[in-house]
Amino acid sequence: MPLQTMPDKPLILVTNDDGAGANGLKALLEVVRPLGTVYAVVPAEPHSGMSHAITVSRPVRVNYRRDLSEGDYHCYTVTGTPVDCVKLAINRLLPRRPDLVVSGINHGSNASVNLIYSGTMGAALEGAVNGIRSIGLSLLNYDPEADFSAAARISDTIIRQVLANGYRPGLCLNVNVPVPDDGTIKGIRVCRQTKGYWSEEFEETLDENGEKGYLLRGFYHNLEPGVAGTDEWALEQGFVAVVPVDADHTRYDDMEHLRDLNMDLSEL
Amino acid sequence: MPLQTMPDKPLILVTNDDGAGANGLKALLEVVRPLGTVYAVVPAEPHSGMSHAITVSRPVRVNYRRDLSEGDYHCYTVTGTPVDCVKLAINRLLPRRPDLVVSGINHGSNASVNLIYSGTMGAALEGAVNGIRSIGLSLLNYDPEADFSAAARISDTIIRQVLANGYRPGLCLNVNVPVPDDGTIKGIRVCRQTKGYWSEEFEETLDENGEKGYLLRGFYHNLEPGVAGTDEWALEQGFVAVVPVDADHTRYDDMEHLRDLNMDLSEL
Repeated sequence: MPLQTMPDKPLILVTNDDGAGANGLKALLEVVRPLGTVYAVVPAEPHSGMSHAITVSRPVRVNYRRDLSEGDYHCYTVTGTPVDCVKLAINRLLPRRPDLVVSGINHGSNASVNLIYSGTMGAALEGAVNGIRSIGLSLLNYDPEADFSAAARISDTIIRQVLANGYRPGLCLNVNVPVPDDGTIKGIRVCRQTKGYWSEEFEETLDENGEKGYLLRGFYHNLEPGVAGTDEWALEQGFVAVVPVDADHTRYDDMEHLRDLNMDLSEL
Repeated sequence: MPLQTMPDKPLILVTNDDGAGANGLKALLEVVRPLGTVYAVVPAEPHSGMSHAITVSRPVRVNYRRDLSEGDYHCYTVTGTPVDCVKLAINRLLPRRPDLVVSGINHGSNASVNLIYSGTMGAALEGAVNGIRSIGLSLLNYDPEADFSAAARISDTIIRQVLANGYRPGLCLNVNVPVPDDGTIKGIRVCRQTKGYWSEEFEETLDENGEKGYLLRGFYHNLEPGVAGTDEWALEQGFVAVVPVDADHTRYDDMEHLRDLNMDLSEL
């Protein structure tokens, strides 16, 4: 029988994009279990690169996977995207609106422009769109067997701060944890998103029928190398980078200029 | 044999998320064909709701589909997402970097928070991330047989303006065209993205094996009804809404406040 939500404990939704078996998820669950009533609602399969995608053309299936752990939390897997998980959790699976959405801990960076491709951050931003305080957590190590102990300690610090002090509902934190050469994380810095892009070198493949395909392979380019206050800069210096983000894409500083371009015609 | 790019003509990349057969794509191609050398690189199948998703776990296939039209443009279909199309176009298929990326014309609104789920806008933003002027175009009519004539006229006006006068490379316009009751579009307004969200009422389904599923069905909620300067407001008034956007999610106005929350620890 499902656990009841305790009214004096915060209700925490945990999700990710690496799926139910990911070590980063296990590390995050260990962090949040003492902090509230925890529901994990995660993709049944890894969904890296799914961004804010939603499943619109077919139903998704939900499985209760309490057996995933003997720990004191619920776990559901969903045959959909990370954002599907958050939508189902909020609208169907949880006993009430959660107090916090935490997504991760992702295996790999979601700093700079990586945020926009990231299923981890797509899920976190979906929490924010729903007016819920949200945190996306990522470790700069793609190895499935990466050591999450430092990232877990930092997640614990940040999640406790947010639960104790809060911030504007609808805000999301994009938290990236470096892996410094000397193993020493220097602290936490509030940053802005670094300008950058990926240039792709698609690898040509041949399938069993001799049909040619293209496999995405790329290189990240930092357009602001060494610029203080950017998340990539903080990470290079050995700091955890915390970027406040939400779903508003408006470039306010460009609005006036566009009006100058005579786009604002009164008649066509 | 492929057409050669004429050096005096702008190179225009056209994409969408509704696939090669969509009427909105055909309408947009009619608009841009006289304006430059045109490459259409589009998903082989509809990809609504794909946001900024990329295909990372399998190769995508590319087909040259010159036969889609006898018009003077190239057309490729890609077995991937709208963002895959833009990445392949820029890195593999086009003779040089395009001068403009146009995505659409989408069947349905991408105003307000719809932007973040939209494959049309995902593709347009990918152009912007690559430093290319980009435009996403949407008509507030989901009907596959919708009348695109007014949207095509407005697209023509805006695209000609952008080609003639330009704006900051890396900026993207999110253009939504209303369908006023009286048929009269009043003009164009430069706006900001409206705050809003979708509340979901998942429809329960049963497949042939009796397995339960959830099909995404929702309602849009405008959190700023009637607020002047928002894109939803402009559209309700019968104006085309133009929102300048890019991929930067940073909430600059929240950075100071987060520092106050003692997140900016020098030591853990």
